Amino acid sequence: MQSHGFKILHTSSHSRARRGKITTPYGVVETPAFVTVGTKATVKSLTPEDFELTGTQFIFVNTYHIVLFPGEGVVRKAGGVHTFSKLNKPIITDSGGFQVYSLARRQIEITHDDGAIAKAHLVKINDHGVEFRSHIDGKKHIFTPEFSIQAQKNIGADFVVALDECIFYGASKEYTKKSLERTHTWAERSLKEFNRSREKSAQPAQEQQIYGIMQGGLYTDLHQKSIEKIASMDFWGIAIGGVAVGMTAKEVYGVVDTATTVLGADPRPRHLLGIGSIEDIVDYVMCGVDTFDCVIPTRCARVGLLYDAPIDTIVKNAGKRSLKKKANLTLDITHTKNKNDFSPVSRFCNCYVCSNYSRAYLHHLFKQKELLAYRLATIHNLAYIEKFFANIRKKIEENKL
Amino acid sequence: MQSHGFKILHTSSHSRARRGKITTPYGVVETPAFVTVGTKATVKSLTPEDFELTGTQFIFVNTYHIVLFPGEGVVRKAGGVHTFSKLNKPIITDSGGFQVYSLARRQIEITHDDGAIAKAHLVKINDHGVEFRSHIDGKKHIFTPEFSIQAQKNIGADFVVALDECIFYGASKEYTKKSLERTHTWAERSLKEFNRSREKSAQPAQEQQIYGIMQGGLYTDLHQKSIEKIASMDFWGIAIGGVAVGMTAKEVYGVVDTATTVLGADPRPRHLLGIGSIEDIVDYVMCGVDTFDCVIPTRCARVGLLYDAPIDTIVKNAGKRSLKKKANLTLDITHTKNKNDFSPVSRFCNCYVCSNYSRAYLHHLFKQKELLAYRLATIHNLAYIEKFFANIRKKIEENKL
Repeated sequence: MQSHGFKILHTSSHSRARRGKITTPYGVVETPAFVTVGTKATVKSLTPEDFELTGTQFIFVNTYHIVLFPGEGVVRKAGGVHTFSKLNKPIITDSGGFQVYSLARRQIEITHDDGAIAKAHLVKINDHGVEFRSHIDGKKHIFTPEFSIQAQKNIGADFVVALDECIFYGASKEYTKKSLERTHTWAERSLKEFNRSREKSAQPAQEQQIYGIMQGGLYTDLHQKSIEKIASMDFWGIAIGGVAVGMTAKEVYGVVDTATTVLGADPRPRHLLGIGSIEDIVDYVMCGVDTFDCVIPTRCARVGLLYDAPIDTIVKNAGKRSLKKKANLTLDITHTKNKNDFSPVSRFCNCYVCSNYSRAYLHHLFKQKELLAYRLATIHNLAYIEKFFANIRKKIEENKL
Repeated sequence: MQSHGFKILHTSSHSRARRGKITTPYGVVETPAFVTVGTKATVKSLTPEDFELTGTQFIFVNTYHIVLFPGEGVVRKAGGVHTFSKLNKPIITDSGGFQVYSLARRQIEITHDDGAIAKAHLVKINDHGVEFRSHIDGKKHIFTPEFSIQAQKNIGADFVVALDECIFYGASKEYTKKSLERTHTWAERSLKEFNRSREKSAQPAQEQQIYGIMQGGLYTDLHQKSIEKIASMDFWGIAIGGVAVGMTAKEVYGVVDTATTVLGADPRPRHLLGIGSIEDIVDYVMCGVDTFDCVIPTRCARVGLLYDAPIDTIVKNAGKRSLKKKANLTLDITHTKNKNDFSPVSRFCNCYVCSNYSRAYLHHLFKQKELLAYRLATIHNLAYIEKFFANIRKKIEENKL
């Protein structure tokens, strides 16, 4: 089996964009690359055979969801996530933190007999870790850096990520500073735990590698401080995570620009968490981001929004487009105008779906809520975004990006 | 393109079981054969590539559903159902009658201002045809024999079926007689319309063939009269349809036994509508039935009931087993006992799913309502039933059935 490696093959003469290659025991990832989200150890509706149709290179599995069901112990007993789920591609898991924090700002109301209302947070954060209750069965869980690393080792993906505190949008500078200290301490604890139990992964033969993760809320000086700190540590890869839900495109660009500027020629792979709208990706590639995970292509597919735009034009017209008005890049297949349209989903695409099926048939499947609708739509959107990334890679090689 | 044909290759020395071959422009069907239900021009969750994994030979599409959405005109404009849906196998459509009649016994209640309650049937049947309102948009439809044949020609399957009146369970002999007269008149009208517009099918190049259909409610003398009448007409194939929802296994066996006894050595293919439980199929094969359609394998799959029983034993122990207590032939994959079971779904199966996935993973997918659950379960159940039929065919060749 091939061991883990990352090589920068070419840097654009035109921008900070990098053309690279990640090698893993489960295959090669040509970068810049899209990481398809397979939350619960399944890319919704697809089998590995479909990845050959879509060109999928890399898969993202969510530790939070696996811990809650079926439990990381089941996946370990199965021999790790590749064996359990037959996802035959390089896989990265997250720390589980993001999903926990998305519960953190919510409160539950408990009404007492006398009408008094008590409010309770679902999540408690302190320096030890994050305590929360399962949204499935109410069971209490505590995610510490050590637990998160152990869970990820049990799941047995190729790459794991250190636990951080994903700060909420609009947090004060004072709170953000305190939170960032915690994130940095947790980064050290995560790395220590990872190195300590290096030999105890789900599949002993399988080597894993670890990404550190930067934070910093809305504050550029804290982003700078965080990326310097994380980059100084012995992580195999760097994840850019200081992106809170609610941030504007301009704010996100600021985080990525700061992080990649500080990283400069750092030779480690850089992953941008949770960003994947076609309009924005080129901007971040030009900053020097190597990999992106996002639910957009698969989630949009399942509601019938299918990519239909000229890839070459999008890539060519890139620049600071993320700061501009979004273009209309998708077709709403559920619209009645498609009922008698026997042309393929997109004239800019020659994927399995566009080569075989018509808009009329997909419209029919979506209107009838037929299971095949979600599968075909997912294949199209994933094939499209992979072709989009292939175009980006080519443009970097040609110094056109 | 190959034209339509049916050849009996061998008749068992042991029973009335026939080993045959149906040829069509879309391929060959080895009989006895299972006809997979693809109600709305899709076998739920599957692509044609999956039929290679399952061994699917023959597909059943429901005219009622297609007429209601997207409309038979859309399918015609697409070039017929094979082109529209890419179902690359021989296809048979039904008349649409069965679904209409399943509404026929229901009433809707209309409450007036003064509290008076009026009751109205959703369906009106007379000699002209059946009038009903769409369950989707309330639009009025009239299915006459002529309309049904035209709709089926527009859909463009390889085989169409004459319109009949599917009588409700428990109908009096008097009503059944009257209804049967109507069914026979409709058989004549269906055949006349089919021959009249033979050249106007969805795909002019595509030849279609027509099945007549017998009825007769609960009365053996009427079954006899009906099968004699239908067999005397110039239908390409014979469908046994006198099977009402609610009939006992013994009653159904009576209909099939009578029909096939009367048919004797009639060389046309015989289709038994809507019957497909593994426990019963062998009995009907031994009566001389050639093809069977049923939702059981696919519908059970989608609720997590997966075939897990030794095929050879079931086939070997066949006889009048349909009259006996049902055996437990399925595994309920949603049961918690499967959570840590890393063995395949069935040790009697080597299908794509059993070769690649564990009970634990399927359990996980089902508990999490993941789309892949329904797809993998469907592949397993269809592969299993196809293997079951392959075993039956072999046993007939060997005069062991």
